[in-house]
Amino acid sequence: MVTSSTARKLHLAVAQLGPVQRADSRKQVVLRLLELLKDAASRGAAWVTFPELALTTFFPRWDMDDSAEIRAFFETEMPGPETRPLFDAARELSVGFYLGYAELDGDRQFNTSILVGRDGTILGKYRKIHIPGDAATVSGAALQHLEKKYFAVGDLGFPVWETPDAKIGMCICNDRRWPETFRVMGLQGVDVVMNGYNTPSGYVQWNEPIHLRMHHHLLSLQSAAYQNACWIASAAKAGVEEGSPMIGGSAIVAPTGEVMVRTFSEDDEVINFVCDLSVCEYYRANIFNFAAHRRPEHYGLILERTGAGAPLARP
Amino acid sequence: MVTSSTARKLHLAVAQLGPVQRADSRKQVVLRLLELLKDAASRGAAWVTFPELALTTFFPRWDMDDSAEIRAFFETEMPGPETRPLFDAARELSVGFYLGYAELDGDRQFNTSILVGRDGTILGKYRKIHIPGDAATVSGAALQHLEKKYFAVGDLGFPVWETPDAKIGMCICNDRRWPETFRVMGLQGVDVVMNGYNTPSGYVQWNEPIHLRMHHHLLSLQSAAYQNACWIASAAKAGVEEGSPMIGGSAIVAPTGEVMVRTFSEDDEVINFVCDLSVCEYYRANIFNFAAHRRPEHYGLILERTGAGAPLARP
Repeated sequence: MVTSSTARKLHLAVAQLGPVQRADSRKQVVLRLLELLKDAASRGAAWVTFPELALTTFFPRWDMDDSAEIRAFFETEMPGPETRPLFDAARELSVGFYLGYAELDGDRQFNTSILVGRDGTILGKYRKIHIPGDAATVSGAALQHLEKKYFAVGDLGFPVWETPDAKIGMCICNDRRWPETFRVMGLQGVDVVMNGYNTPSGYVQWNEPIHLRMHHHLLSLQSAAYQNACWIASAAKAGVEEGSPMIGGSAIVAPTGEVMVRTFSEDDEVINFVCDLSVCEYYRANIFNFAAHRRPEHYGLILERTGAGAPLARP
Repeated sequence: MVTSSTARKLHLAVAQLGPVQRADSRKQVVLRLLELLKDAASRGAAWVTFPELALTTFFPRWDMDDSAEIRAFFETEMPGPETRPLFDAARELSVGFYLGYAELDGDRQFNTSILVGRDGTILGKYRKIHIPGDAATVSGAALQHLEKKYFAVGDLGFPVWETPDAKIGMCICNDRRWPETFRVMGLQGVDVVMNGYNTPSGYVQWNEPIHLRMHHHLLSLQSAAYQNACWIASAAKAGVEEGSPMIGGSAIVAPTGEVMVRTFSEDDEVINFVCDLSVCEYYRANIFNFAAHRRPEHYGLILERTGAGAPLARP
């Protein structure tokens, strides 16, 4: 579509993880991540997106109260002894990455991701803002989702990092369903948003058909990429963890709103795509020229209200 | 999906118009609208959505400077002598409607829609906020789109009307591509958003494939309906007007993000669907419980910036 003279290519990969069981050690998981990183590098990818909470099983499905039991799922340093090999490999292979993990910062617990540069250093950190689910067990529910119990709301906003390759932003799982997430990054000129997720197949909002879980995941990515003229690389932890199935559907999505490549399996799997960042510029100069077309004077309610309220009085 | 005891049904129709040529009179167009209204009523529909600028050809494709020539496309009263039969039919059939037209208010020109109740009275007015295109002819462009020349930015916000059937909001054409449009209405608890459009098939943003016009139209509607837990009824003026083709794809979209019914043709065509409004409530109580999950303290940039700027300084 774009002539070769204007194209600005960036080779992205997404490394989906299959299930991580409770008995799996950090070391075992990191070995899997290393294999995926090497696979991506061997294809020529410059950046790899790993999933949310990639180092352990998705523990918010359980209601735990013992603090030692809970804190076993959290990292107190990054890199730590078990994760350092990933950073070393990134530097050796010159491949940057996004990695999600549970972060213990003093007494505060966050659902966190880091952006690691192609030199193996941490460029920045994001802490999940749209924490879904509940703060306490819902009686009678077939499936619990207790993220609000284990994680504080992120306090770092939605930053965007200027790397030599692209402006890169991060978000985590449920953040992708909220257009505010991507708009705040779009207003910083983001080229690529990396996203990791754990999406239980059966955590439906009513008795909705289960296939809608995948539909909603892809719909959210596609609309966000289109409406903010950016590429999105989104990585699942997928498959059956501790008896609980999670969707796959890891994908790289273009600013056209098209899924360019996605995973086939619900297991460890790498996908990659050579992304043309110049397409972002075309949309930003035309239909999504924010300066020309946005009208913040009519958007006040987005900040004034948190929850929905009554219709406004009309002139 | 929803048990019959909880369902809250509302029967919606969308009346797509085929092309309107410059020589077609208001009277001829209103006769077509009346046929479509009666068709919708005969199927049991309670509300009909007509297109944007439904009464004339899509004149912003032309660069005109003669004020008499321009103002021939605008309405100075609503209803006027030619449009009154529509209001009478609405009352007789007990069918409400959305109608888009070019509005002349003193010296101000707006791209406007009205919501007419099932009693034939005007419930409210919306004036298009996201005016696309250009304010002057772009030299060398194959197709001109001069909405910014002919229309002032709407000054009525994004209101929502509480009718006995549902909370109903309106937007027009390009508004549907902007998530802010629907979020402002979602924060007022909107159940149904009506939207009319004229979308030239060939007005592409770069040399993008023409099929993406339809993809972007539907993607915008689907994500907006899902992310705001509302139904959307969207009506095209379609087909070849004065040599210029426009997409069809009029649709009724559910809060699941699914297109439930859409038009087949690029001509006059009615589609209808019995919508269950209770589904809105399920989503609003769960994944899109705004009060529980939104975090406006991190959305500031949406109002602070109009255009995109540099990445924010990071903590």
